[in-house]
Amino acid sequence: MPTLRLALSQVNPSVGDLAGNADLVRSWTRQAADAGAQLVLFPELMLTGYPVEDLVFRRSFVAASRAALERLAADLAADGLGDLPVVVGYLDADGPPQVSGDAEPGRGARNAAALLHRGAVVARYFKHHLPNYGVFDEDRYFVSGDTLTVVRIGGVDVALTICEDLWQAGGPFAAARQAGVGLVVNINGSPYELNKDDIRLPLVRRRAAEAQAAIAYVNMIGGQDELVFEGDSMIVTADGELLARAPQFVEHLLVHDVELPAAATPPATEIVADGMRVAHSTVDGIPPTPSGPAAVGGLIEPVADEAEVWQALVLGLRDYVNKNRFPSVVLGLSGGIDSAVVAALAVDALGPDRVAGVSLPSQHSSEHSREDAADLAKRTGLDYRIEPIQPMVDGFLANLSLSGLAVENLQARVRGVILMALSNQEGHLVLTTGNKSELAVGYSTLYGDSVGGFNPVKDVWKTLIWRLAKWRNADAARRGETAPIPKNSIGKPPSAELSPGQLDSDTLPDYDVLDPILIGYVDGDLGRDGLIESGHDPAVVDKVLRLVDTAEYKRRQSAPGTKISMKAFGRDRRLPITNRWREDG
Amino acid sequence: MPTLRLALSQVNPSVGDLAGNADLVRSWTRQAADAGAQLVLFPELMLTGYPVEDLVFRRSFVAASRAALERLAADLAADGLGDLPVVVGYLDADGPPQVSGDAEPGRGARNAAALLHRGAVVARYFKHHLPNYGVFDEDRYFVSGDTLTVVRIGGVDVALTICEDLWQAGGPFAAARQAGVGLVVNINGSPYELNKDDIRLPLVRRRAAEAQAAIAYVNMIGGQDELVFEGDSMIVTADGELLARAPQFVEHLLVHDVELPAAATPPATEIVADGMRVAHSTVDGIPPTPSGPAAVGGLIEPVADEAEVWQALVLGLRDYVNKNRFPSVVLGLSGGIDSAVVAALAVDALGPDRVAGVSLPSQHSSEHSREDAADLAKRTGLDYRIEPIQPMVDGFLANLSLSGLAVENLQARVRGVILMALSNQEGHLVLTTGNKSELAVGYSTLYGDSVGGFNPVKDVWKTLIWRLAKWRNADAARRGETAPIPKNSIGKPPSAELSPGQLDSDTLPDYDVLDPILIGYVDGDLGRDGLIESGHDPAVVDKVLRLVDTAEYKRRQSAPGTKISMKAFGRDRRLPITNRWREDG
Repeated sequence: MPTLRLALSQVNPSVGDLAGNADLVRSWTRQAADAGAQLVLFPELMLTGYPVEDLVFRRSFVAASRAALERLAADLAADGLGDLPVVVGYLDADGPPQVSGDAEPGRGARNAAALLHRGAVVARYFKHHLPNYGVFDEDRYFVSGDTLTVVRIGGVDVALTICEDLWQAGGPFAAARQAGVGLVVNINGSPYELNKDDIRLPLVRRRAAEAQAAIAYVNMIGGQDELVFEGDSMIVTADGELLARAPQFVEHLLVHDVELPAAATPPATEIVADGMRVAHSTVDGIPPTPSGPAAVGGLIEPVADEAEVWQALVLGLRDYVNKNRFPSVVLGLSGGIDSAVVAALAVDALGPDRVAGVSLPSQHSSEHSREDAADLAKRTGLDYRIEPIQPMVDGFLANLSLSGLAVENLQARVRGVILMALSNQEGHLVLTTGNKSELAVGYSTLYGDSVGGFNPVKDVWKTLIWRLAKWRNADAARRGETAPIPKNSIGKPPSAELSPGQLDSDTLPDYDVLDPILIGYVDGDLGRDGLIESGHDPAVVDKVLRLVDTAEYKRRQSAPGTKISMKAFGRDRRLPITNRWREDG
Repeated sequence: MPTLRLALSQVNPSVGDLAGNADLVRSWTRQAADAGAQLVLFPELMLTGYPVEDLVFRRSFVAASRAALERLAADLAADGLGDLPVVVGYLDADGPPQVSGDAEPGRGARNAAALLHRGAVVARYFKHHLPNYGVFDEDRYFVSGDTLTVVRIGGVDVALTICEDLWQAGGPFAAARQAGVGLVVNINGSPYELNKDDIRLPLVRRRAAEAQAAIAYVNMIGGQDELVFEGDSMIVTADGELLARAPQFVEHLLVHDVELPAAATPPATEIVADGMRVAHSTVDGIPPTPSGPAAVGGLIEPVADEAEVWQALVLGLRDYVNKNRFPSVVLGLSGGIDSAVVAALAVDALGPDRVAGVSLPSQHSSEHSREDAADLAKRTGLDYRIEPIQPMVDGFLANLSLSGLAVENLQARVRGVILMALSNQEGHLVLTTGNKSELAVGYSTLYGDSVGGFNPVKDVWKTLIWRLAKWRNADAARRGETAPIPKNSIGKPPSAELSPGQLDSDTLPDYDVLDPILIGYVDGDLGRDGLIESGHDPAVVDKVLRLVDTAEYKRRQSAPGTKISMKAFGRDRRLPITNRWREDG
């Protein structure tokens, strides 16, 4: 059996940066060549970044993607890398490459993969299965391809597939089996979700069995607005053996020698399998089989959920800040657990010099809140300052007749105005710190604590916030470093501190009661009856459901933030604001 | 040829209000019966309201829709209306009606129509063509139906279809032709877009020719978050003659006698046409042909664009406020054109007693601004007050070191805090007044003038704002009423008045230059080259495109507002915030 040295390039592209992404391909192909690779793979929509959303409808953007692909092929050859076949994702469309005028925008856009060799695009593949659920809207953007592309490389028949082609049965993988290929390449822009890595490997194994072929799965890493891509690239044999697996959340070149079946000679004449045509081509003159020891990519061990989520949140935040070219971030430090966790994430993502923390005490702020905020600042080394809000709150109270909730919210809004003023004056991005539980029930002040450009913990339930804090401190201890989060911030009862002696538990059920109900209702789409059947108190269920249903408007006004679940508020979960349906009638 | 008296019920359902919507069906069916109708038609998803978005995934909601349909059939019979066949849209799903437990949520949901007669559901139809563009996400929510439902009513074969079935060629209308039906019913939840009524009639005529059958097109009216449904129900003969047409934006019962071809006896045996199965059934015992004069529905004349948009904005605002049960609205009155138009819309929608206007002058507010705001209040009769912001602005300036843009934005944010405090204290919904042009280029203060729960002019370009103001004043004059909008607010050069002598034209091109570029870029998805080919100055184009591309984040934080175009910011136009693509390189 022939052996191919595969290089899976788990890189971090930026949406819209065609030149920068092409440069990434060139430099990682150089590294792969230096490692003796005979076939290099890059992720889905590598050249444009993923997802490009309505940029697909801009004909100038589609034309730029196609032009960048041709230029990349030429540049790789000019770099002396022409012999090395490179698979790269890009945006294509039906029709001539430089259309202008009256063609309907977005008509026939394709989520495409190309094989580049010796300065030319020698094969193209158009994604067949288009996902249209959760964060995916690909039925809106792309036309489905109906041809499986098989390229003979080093005597092995290699099929090209893209992302969702792996997640749905039938289509390309079934066609690959009938075409008798030895390897299926699957290039991905697959966003992170808690526990998704646990189902990915079994899925790859099932498809390998279905295709009776090895699978090389390569995924991008990096943050893109609310999405974070996790990597987790891998190679699995036709028998389901995991040969190599890359780490999550970091760029990585996974190089591994894979024994693959020699292709039948000559290529099968045109066949139609599972509704797909199969198009064959051959690449001649790839780099020779390297001498010396076999390349071994290694196998990464899975990490604890808390470690995984922490890495996802750090990467999502870092890339949002850096790809949008913000110099630094600012956030309010209340002494509570949410702002402490966000501050620790920000310091891990950007370093303490790029994080400003502001204590914004009012007359209701307790002594321990001020102390805990100061302690956090000392532990993390972030830039710390104190701006008491009472004089400004009093200015409003002297001019307006306000009472009750209006006074509570006023304090949060004065804090918001101060943070935004610091953002305008000093250039920081404001970080929002509300967790998913309070976002779900609307326990926040619109244009108050909900102010900000990015919320790293938007998709993190409150009980998970506590677990993350404990894990991060324990991890610091394990490494002999200072624990970033004050023990007191973890241990004390949560409070908004907007009125005397106020506690979250005055208004909300305890979080260990609240979160399971929210998880059933939001993540599980359970109705009232289903929640009560699961053992929850009917009165508490009714109260929680009413809060969630009426908080929709506030959620629409909240900052984007890193998504880690199937039902993050925002892109995934679309509910009418105007809606008379209530589970409790 | 038999004659059928059709009643098209152009009503205003509320999302989620299953009981209230069923009551609407009962009372309008009573009116139709009183008018001698022999077949009554209600809009798409009448029972649930439209669109229900992710409520589709709640099994309890699907079950409630099915139960409400059965109950409605029984209630109509109990009302003595059982003989009168009623077509009504509802949400259905495959599988047993009361599933609970482990079935995947949302599996097999159907956008359905039912024919109710003598206390029972006698026929069902599942929408075939599912729209998945613009505001529509139906591929995400529904499974496509593959059976055309034909019911013999009063000796006429009537096919049931839903909305998009009309907009795409082939499928149900082609099948209806092969089945030889006399009438195609098309029930709609078709949102308003400027000029859509101009393409709807030709489209209905084309499909009537395709089906060789008359078409009864019924559409809902009403506001649902950003959408506004316009009605415009109509009946067109197989020859393309427009028999009757209902007005836009008001509830209306369109009753008309239509001569239709007698069905062949017996019904054709099962056929398959254009990939669809045809299912036949027969309804016996409908109300007799009425004696007396023929019912004539009448033909509504089209109105001017400005009148149409004004009605759309009024209805969208009124329903957002009333369906969400807000007692009143509050907005800041600057003396400028945007807030004047929004105030006039609000008074038209809710009456002057439910509209509070607040003048919020600063040291940069001109004398004419204060006077124009007071004049507007007098003209419209809204509740007017003045809250000078300078003392509160000075409070922040005394405590923070701010300059330049930070000071400008501070003023807008103090105004936002005051409006939100009044909202909390007095229960008003805050109206936002930023137009689409300033939203496009980011010429607003995040958490300042962008604060608010609803923005009636979110989708209205600045040049259209002026046209609307002039039209509304002229319309008042025509009716001998006071013009609501001060002439001075229309005539003066726009200014944010956040720094001394500031004008919009210091920062932006004149709006009659800016708007055509924005319309080409946003509505037309033209790129830089396309815009320059259209005759725009390249330097201005580059400046505008850069502003639009970098304002995405502010737009994500803006209030919902009535949509009147194909490319409203919000649901329709999805662009990455993190994005390095720039048309000007």
